[in-house]
Amino acid sequence: MTAVQLGHRYGDVVVTVLDDDGQPLRDREVTVEQRTHAFSFGNIGFDFVPVANEEVPPERAARMADLWLDVFNTATLPFYWSDFEPLPGRPATTRLRRAAQWFAARGCRVKGHPLLWHTLAPDWLRELPTAEVEATVRARIRREVADFADVVRTWDAINESVIMPVFRNEPQRNAITRLARERGRIATVRLAFEEARATDPTATLILNDFDMSTAYECLIEGVLEAGIRVDALGLQSHMHQGYWGEEKTLEVLDRFSRYGLPIHMTETTLVSGDVMPPEIDDLNDYQIPSWPSTPDGEQRQADEIVRHYRTLLSHPSVQAITYWGLFDEGAWLGAPAGLVRTDGTPKPGYDALRRLVKQEWWLSPTTLRTDDAGRVTVRGFLGDYQLRCAGRTATVAVTGHGEATTTLGEGTR
Amino acid sequence: MTAVQLGHRYGDVVVTVLDDDGQPLRDREVTVEQRTHAFSFGNIGFDFVPVANEEVPPERAARMADLWLDVFNTATLPFYWSDFEPLPGRPATTRLRRAAQWFAARGCRVKGHPLLWHTLAPDWLRELPTAEVEATVRARIRREVADFADVVRTWDAINESVIMPVFRNEPQRNAITRLARERGRIATVRLAFEEARATDPTATLILNDFDMSTAYECLIEGVLEAGIRVDALGLQSHMHQGYWGEEKTLEVLDRFSRYGLPIHMTETTLVSGDVMPPEIDDLNDYQIPSWPSTPDGEQRQADEIVRHYRTLLSHPSVQAITYWGLFDEGAWLGAPAGLVRTDGTPKPGYDALRRLVKQEWWLSPTTLRTDDAGRVTVRGFLGDYQLRCAGRTATVAVTGHGEATTTLGEGTR
Repeated sequence: MTAVQLGHRYGDVVVTVLDDDGQPLRDREVTVEQRTHAFSFGNIGFDFVPVANEEVPPERAARMADLWLDVFNTATLPFYWSDFEPLPGRPATTRLRRAAQWFAARGCRVKGHPLLWHTLAPDWLRELPTAEVEATVRARIRREVADFADVVRTWDAINESVIMPVFRNEPQRNAITRLARERGRIATVRLAFEEARATDPTATLILNDFDMSTAYECLIEGVLEAGIRVDALGLQSHMHQGYWGEEKTLEVLDRFSRYGLPIHMTETTLVSGDVMPPEIDDLNDYQIPSWPSTPDGEQRQADEIVRHYRTLLSHPSVQAITYWGLFDEGAWLGAPAGLVRTDGTPKPGYDALRRLVKQEWWLSPTTLRTDDAGRVTVRGFLGDYQLRCAGRTATVAVTGHGEATTTLGEGTR
Repeated sequence: MTAVQLGHRYGDVVVTVLDDDGQPLRDREVTVEQRTHAFSFGNIGFDFVPVANEEVPPERAARMADLWLDVFNTATLPFYWSDFEPLPGRPATTRLRRAAQWFAARGCRVKGHPLLWHTLAPDWLRELPTAEVEATVRARIRREVADFADVVRTWDAINESVIMPVFRNEPQRNAITRLARERGRIATVRLAFEEARATDPTATLILNDFDMSTAYECLIEGVLEAGIRVDALGLQSHMHQGYWGEEKTLEVLDRFSRYGLPIHMTETTLVSGDVMPPEIDDLNDYQIPSWPSTPDGEQRQADEIVRHYRTLLSHPSVQAITYWGLFDEGAWLGAPAGLVRTDGTPKPGYDALRRLVKQEWWLSPTTLRTDDAGRVTVRGFLGDYQLRCAGRTATVAVTGHGEATTTLGEGTR
């Protein structure tokens, strides 16, 4: 894959550098350095809830933070209802707000996952009649969106609604499945979006699913026909059963991009050990005593991560990729899906992804010289760039092809 | 399965029998005999297009007719567009009208299949730009529904819309797939229903699909949310790969009945030979030189037909079952899916189904005696019944639990 296929990820801005008198600074050295990516390179931030709440030894917390912040700029935080509010009326708001603020203070975007989902619905919900379940769901959505509006700007408004009314992988049916069965999928999607939207009209609200089949297409078409405003489509891609490959990835993107909505790859996993057998239908059903990371698996994972990120970024609709877990320790299903081993050392996949995000797709400090009109052209991946000249700095955004003016010199008078 | 589970299929009507003077005919013998089923026991009538057009030797035509009419009361006729209108503007209307009228004249209901489908879309459509494809589709639907309004009262308005925009099993993409891809499934469903409805507001319009997965549920929910009025859900069940069994059948009915719409089992097939291997995805891909009916297979088919029809009728939502082909000769895929062998003799499955429809679920001529108020109670499967008394006849409908009055006697004055 060549840079040409990523052309839509690059932009340039012609910056006219002025002195304090408003005169162009001609023929002067300016150092340009990328500071942020417009693209969301995300990961889950679940492990940083204890970090932000100072429950992790400082040295260990610092190591974790360094690894995370060196590659990623968007954190997904867990709002799984049964964990977040194990007893009715006792939500873990304070604890989660600390985590959200921890990321925000470090310049990261924060996403909440999910506002409504059948899995991990609280047990105490099960006893309520459906009308009360609905009222409780609506109140919960309003509460979380309001309580986090200053830091969480993106939400998975509803998760896995394709399977929601027919979900069966549990001994006793949860209340959200019942709600979705009685009300229908679209009515359930609507209530999640309408409560979140009403509470925070500027949040980005995502319809998220693991089902990449035509069923999700059918649901999306119904949701859009019903007039529900969806800001982005969330596509999960837990590849515990093996890398999709470029062809399938592009085929999926082709199908789901035709609704003209941004695509967020919300849950991306590639294991660095044996892959799960293909006959497993619900990944949660796969329980093995030990699932080690292996040298061969780590090389394969690194290779696949690079291929997968390149493929995803080649499609203009993709605006965000969230990798599902930096650390093997405590990973979902015990899978070696992280980019950092249980001993705390980074796998080849970590280094490979870092190279993409912070080298290949990143402008390191570069010295340019202004022309006769005081202009330099900043070219690079879409994002924010810092310009330095004579000890003064300014920031310009590369959002496409544009022009900007900035004052960096002290003036000559 | 006991009669109790079919309770909703039975009704009774208390008939007061009067003489010409309006006086009750007391203590008189009345013979009651069922004449029709309210339930649609359907089959395809494709083989009767040549029969109705007098292209089949009369003796053979009579044998075919006897076999068909002795069990079935609802005929599905083929409106496959590429066959129906091989050259633009030259539809086979006259030829198909003869077939429709042939069935109608013999007391059968007639259904048209399908008004819109990607498979068997005419080649000449492919060259048109999408807007013209849409206009042509709309005109074709209006034309067929109008031209057959007096005889075809039920239509598969659209067939297999779940797969319609992503259908790939063809060397060159057909125009209907393109239309559905560009417009979306729901817009495509809407245009089929709205043209058919506008042309014949009293016709029964069916959304028909083979996809029994949650994808069809998602589509249905979107269609209903979009305000499209669907009169019945069509569920195909081509069981070339083996009988579904009671459990799956009831599970499917449970899922699709929750929309409160009548269910038509539109395409029912059980083979009387080897079953197709399970790994075949599109049944059309299975091409074998010979697929014989076998004695064991015929017994199995007979058993499965009885089980399947009992199961389907036990569910109150099911209003129609169309078996897909009476004759093995010319059967789809060359499968031994018919109920009559290629040598023209009925298989055990034919006799078994006939026993259900015309014996177990049928009231043969039965002599009753009116009470002191001139009343007899007619009990049986929902349908029309003929009463005879002293050489005069009258018809009463059993539609549930009701009362009726009829005049059968000549009077005593």
